[in-house]
Amino acid sequence: MPPALVPLDLLPWSRHHLERVERALSLWVGDGAPAGLGDAMRYAVLDGGKRLRPLLVWAAFEAVQGMPVPPGDAPQGGAAAALRAACAVELIHAYSLVHDDMPCMDNDVLRRGKPTVHVQFGEAQALLAGDALQAFAFELLTPEDPLVPADVQARLCRQLARAAGSAGMAGGQAIDLASVGLALTEDQLRHMHRLKTGALLQASVMMGAACAHPGPVAQAALSDYGAALGLAFQVVDDILDVVADSATLGKTAGKDAASDKPTYVSLLGLDRAQAYARALLAQAQAALQASGLDDTRALAALADMVVNRSH
Amino acid sequence: MPPALVPLDLLPWSRHHLERVERALSLWVGDGAPAGLGDAMRYAVLDGGKRLRPLLVWAAFEAVQGMPVPPGDAPQGGAAAALRAACAVELIHAYSLVHDDMPCMDNDVLRRGKPTVHVQFGEAQALLAGDALQAFAFELLTPEDPLVPADVQARLCRQLARAAGSAGMAGGQAIDLASVGLALTEDQLRHMHRLKTGALLQASVMMGAACAHPGPVAQAALSDYGAALGLAFQVVDDILDVVADSATLGKTAGKDAASDKPTYVSLLGLDRAQAYARALLAQAQAALQASGLDDTRALAALADMVVNRSH
Repeated sequence: MPPALVPLDLLPWSRHHLERVERALSLWVGDGAPAGLGDAMRYAVLDGGKRLRPLLVWAAFEAVQGMPVPPGDAPQGGAAAALRAACAVELIHAYSLVHDDMPCMDNDVLRRGKPTVHVQFGEAQALLAGDALQAFAFELLTPEDPLVPADVQARLCRQLARAAGSAGMAGGQAIDLASVGLALTEDQLRHMHRLKTGALLQASVMMGAACAHPGPVAQAALSDYGAALGLAFQVVDDILDVVADSATLGKTAGKDAASDKPTYVSLLGLDRAQAYARALLAQAQAALQASGLDDTRALAALADMVVNRSH
Repeated sequence: MPPALVPLDLLPWSRHHLERVERALSLWVGDGAPAGLGDAMRYAVLDGGKRLRPLLVWAAFEAVQGMPVPPGDAPQGGAAAALRAACAVELIHAYSLVHDDMPCMDNDVLRRGKPTVHVQFGEAQALLAGDALQAFAFELLTPEDPLVPADVQARLCRQLARAAGSAGMAGGQAIDLASVGLALTEDQLRHMHRLKTGALLQASVMMGAACAHPGPVAQAALSDYGAALGLAFQVVDDILDVVADSATLGKTAGKDAASDKPTYVSLLGLDRAQAYARALLAQAQAALQASGLDDTRALAALADMVVNRSH
């Protein structure tokens, strides 16, 4: 039984960890790229987004390491790897949004309250910026830097590549494409979302943990936590698409229904979708209890935030 | 001075090495992907292409290792890594063609004599297939397999990510986009091509070498070889775009002039472009001489093939 801890205040914890991520992304993204491409890459990544995935990396890393990462620009040891992992998962997320917004996919013109990348820079540049961001994620994970051991580099690349690829995010998007107008079962919808959004969220947790070498019990529990949180994220996304307005969301609301996409709300109705989100939150919290880790407050608070967010 | 060796017959050498690559790609690509996406990925990769990049991986690996890889499906030691590297560079090449052919880029409908991926599967599926192929390249490089040591996995990912990203292939494509209709200097054209095609060709050489742990002299010489060969490849591409027909090329000939793209032929004229290709071939061969490696015949024959090919 872990000792009783005072509740964690997520806001200062997040601010502290995100400052370092924002600084690193700002320093790294687009560096060495031709001007136009670099601008599009930076536009896609900087100055926006909830940064949920980097926060999951930090929270899992700290939970497994058993102590908080002190402030400062040059993290040492596992924290140097965790910073790179936090940036890398965000790069994959950002690239997927750039490609997803393109006319041949969702054809969206508004993202985080700004014109989407292809609107701002043209389709060709958006395509290349997405491609380059994906490559850069793997470049960030493999520095010529003895602070990040080779076995950690290889493991992080493996986890990220699987989560991003055809059995993860890209696969989920392909199923999504093929599902427009179809009546999916709940199992089929869950499978699609486990791939499309769940895989990268779960990988964020597992990559953060991998930077601190978890034991098998903690690893299995964090995997369960990540799976429940990943699915909860999508259920809540579907709910918000119905109940929130575009200004709050920073993107076009009501899109799913308009495009005849199957969602948890269309499948279960609003009440049961909300109950399902709460059940997944309880699963995530139970997994943390079973992890044997002393301090999982940040992970718990992030799960709570995912389910109770308003955008 | 290396001992005199009988000249290498490139055809049986290539056949032997490509059989293994084709089998591996056929086994691996699209495995576990949703049906439509997997089909598009396999269509993009299998049954086509010269496979120059995988051949460069094998040739560099054998040159550094100092002995040929015996036939068989389950290569051991460094050869297990080299097989994965050979497939990974081809996946990156294949994904770049899929995206490059899309309407917002080159809008090409014919590739290797077949309809391009977006013509066959639709634009959205083509976009996702390209994205998934890039991720899969990094997945292939990071197996949970003790045959490929973690430091080799990390180094291969690093080399491939750099070559594919904004300071490599994607960066070169962005410069290419921005250069249509402009009068580039020879330096600017060279810089564009070093990134756009040269980086991945050079990385193929260096990744093959990395699987066999080269010394610093060989490493520097192979880097020079890869740089010269990479540039030669593009100069010859520009020449073939002018002198060959579409049937021979398997893609639309005369496209560069039609789209007002700067090329070595438009910049130097045909005769000087041909002389430049021969000079680059001589540079590549000189680098092999300086490598201190005993048997670089396959690398020499590949450089010769690149410059003297008809398609």
